[in-house]
Amino acid sequence: MPVRYQPPLPADLASVPGVTLGTAAGHIKNWQRDDVLLVAFEPGTVAAGVFTQNRFCAAPVIICREHLARGGSVRALLVNAGNANAGTGAAGIKAASLCCVAVAAQLGCTPEEVLLFSTGVIMEPLPVERIVEALPVASRALASDHWFAAVLAIMTTDTVPKATSRIVSIDGVDITATGMAKGAGMIHPNMATMLALIATDASIAAGLLQTLTREIADVSFNCATIDGDTSTNDSFVIAATGKAGMAPITAAGDPRLASLRIALTDIAVTLAQAIVRDGEGATKFITVRVEQGRDSAECRRIALGIAHSPLVKTAFFASDPNLGRIVCAIGNAATPDLDASRVAFWLDDVLVVEGGSRSAGYLEADGQRVMQQEEITIRVILGRGEAAAMVWTCDFSHEYVSINADYRS
Amino acid sequence: MPVRYQPPLPADLASVPGVTLGTAAGHIKNWQRDDVLLVAFEPGTVAAGVFTQNRFCAAPVIICREHLARGGSVRALLVNAGNANAGTGAAGIKAASLCCVAVAAQLGCTPEEVLLFSTGVIMEPLPVERIVEALPVASRALASDHWFAAVLAIMTTDTVPKATSRIVSIDGVDITATGMAKGAGMIHPNMATMLALIATDASIAAGLLQTLTREIADVSFNCATIDGDTSTNDSFVIAATGKAGMAPITAAGDPRLASLRIALTDIAVTLAQAIVRDGEGATKFITVRVEQGRDSAECRRIALGIAHSPLVKTAFFASDPNLGRIVCAIGNAATPDLDASRVAFWLDDVLVVEGGSRSAGYLEADGQRVMQQEEITIRVILGRGEAAAMVWTCDFSHEYVSINADYRS
Repeated sequence: MPVRYQPPLPADLASVPGVTLGTAAGHIKNWQRDDVLLVAFEPGTVAAGVFTQNRFCAAPVIICREHLARGGSVRALLVNAGNANAGTGAAGIKAASLCCVAVAAQLGCTPEEVLLFSTGVIMEPLPVERIVEALPVASRALASDHWFAAVLAIMTTDTVPKATSRIVSIDGVDITATGMAKGAGMIHPNMATMLALIATDASIAAGLLQTLTREIADVSFNCATIDGDTSTNDSFVIAATGKAGMAPITAAGDPRLASLRIALTDIAVTLAQAIVRDGEGATKFITVRVEQGRDSAECRRIALGIAHSPLVKTAFFASDPNLGRIVCAIGNAATPDLDASRVAFWLDDVLVVEGGSRSAGYLEADGQRVMQQEEITIRVILGRGEAAAMVWTCDFSHEYVSINADYRS
Repeated sequence: MPVRYQPPLPADLASVPGVTLGTAAGHIKNWQRDDVLLVAFEPGTVAAGVFTQNRFCAAPVIICREHLARGGSVRALLVNAGNANAGTGAAGIKAASLCCVAVAAQLGCTPEEVLLFSTGVIMEPLPVERIVEALPVASRALASDHWFAAVLAIMTTDTVPKATSRIVSIDGVDITATGMAKGAGMIHPNMATMLALIATDASIAAGLLQTLTREIADVSFNCATIDGDTSTNDSFVIAATGKAGMAPITAAGDPRLASLRIALTDIAVTLAQAIVRDGEGATKFITVRVEQGRDSAECRRIALGIAHSPLVKTAFFASDPNLGRIVCAIGNAATPDLDASRVAFWLDDVLVVEGGSRSAGYLEADGQRVMQQEEITIRVILGRGEAAAMVWTCDFSHEYVSINADYRS
């Protein structure tokens, strides 16, 4: 069960003018479910994406980067679950290209206007034939109100579908945006990857959309960490169809850009937190904020140091206010010039450490009270600058080990 | 049960001329055991140490660094289990200083000739009075053949004592060296720390001993990682009494230095591996070698990336040859300029990946066979340089979570 996350009902997901979705059973694994998703965009849609930094990035990631570099014009996104097409070398690139050609033939566009997401087993050949055979079914199913079915088709170890919609008025024009994501830890046995798509009918120049996508990723998905492993396939794309009837946003100073950023960021944060709340074996949702650092890189490094410490994570699982482990994690992630005697940290509203050692007023009962909550904020004050960073993570439970020690299914 | 580690019997531990050891019950925690160890060195002993890089380093670490900086002359090492005297600020330094004064009074040396190791709960005041009260008992117990009792006194979550001796002939003189260590993951609930002492009757100049200690740490304890958390108290000291009757080693080019290095490294590697073999919840001992890197820092970063990945560690626990997770961990730890298509890796004698994707000859049955072993070597070939690095680690089991999610005892 995810930690304090209410999954959407089908009716909660708003259709986005210019976007249709269809699913099909590609039988990519031995399961009874749709595992191929085709998203079609009307002509005029532009897209932008950010992708994994993993050096073994998957073939679909390489294809997406290439295709988006041609200007951002897109007509389709093909997603498959069950096989990541990663660590597959030149054969993997060829398989991904074949998928693009098949989608292009189906929709009457060019292969370069097709984007790909894959998630599943790493280092196994992609079953291209089964995906291509599923395409006509997915294509016939294309409809604007199939968002919920689409989310179900891309799930792997997710225990709940993750999607949300926003309708906002920007300068008098109603703009719709719907986003969906999958991910629950990098991996179930080889079932990798965070995938996210946000589609909107806003109209925005491709270059601005790329900047916007990067900015939004940095304050949403890049703040989410379950186990510190970045998948070979992580992908986040925003597609803008321009069907809302607004004049295009073409300048960075356009005030409508700020409004759009707020709406899309809201969706991305909701999806990113949903991934953490549904983290493999998670029983707690933890926000780590590091403030008053010299620069944001320092703050982020320390925040991730806390969020990735198995000892901190198991202490949260146990609801144990184990101060030493958090202090130790801070000390490990800090640079040699950090003055420990200026460091403070809080568990929610409880001041635990000040001046580098236990606060005189700290009572274990107070720490215990906070640790028993399902949602907890650790706030670390470095006391030497103005920068800050935040990450979201979850605890580390027996269930995490069980999920990840299962044989590949 | 540790993974393929045979703990010493009392008779296996050789007395080191110039060294006596005594233990006592300081009742630092509510347990029935000796938890205070006094090691006395005869005049003329020099020591050198390497200590944690954690920015919240403990008071005894600060004291050791200060005292060793005065030239390396030492007369005693006081160890306590049950309290780390870390995150205790100025009060912790004062408590540690009081311990040194008390030892100095007991043994008739100066406080600056005393070193301290502490291990246990972080951020709790050190019970100085109980340690000082235990000192006369420990002092009366001082004897050269008390190494085994000494090792027992410093154990925390260790399931077995870790110590070993070597007697080597160096240029016709028999040199004795005995080492002991404790540690089993950074922590049992707040029971932190790797501590190690090697004592020898060799005669060596203090400056050379410091260089030697650093070199030995780099190829032994610094290669051991269980969960990636460096304790606030990690300490490794080599003490040389000079009682063996050899002419002192005073020049870096002295061929006897190489012989001494080999013997002491052998002890340190045995102890460091014993810590990993006895890692919390460990069922497998894993060596990660990364070769043909551009520099050793790159190789070490990738080796640690593999060793610290919870997904890799749970796959080892499950004996699952989960190639994707290892590939993914390599890709995460690599710099952007790594050419994935040149990477290969082996599980023991099985070539799993070559040219960046699954080896054509790889059979899952072969990977499965290796993964079922208790001891496994992962060898990663980066294919772009001459550098190499190695780390030892263990798997990640249900038992790890159980140990670390228990309430502090």
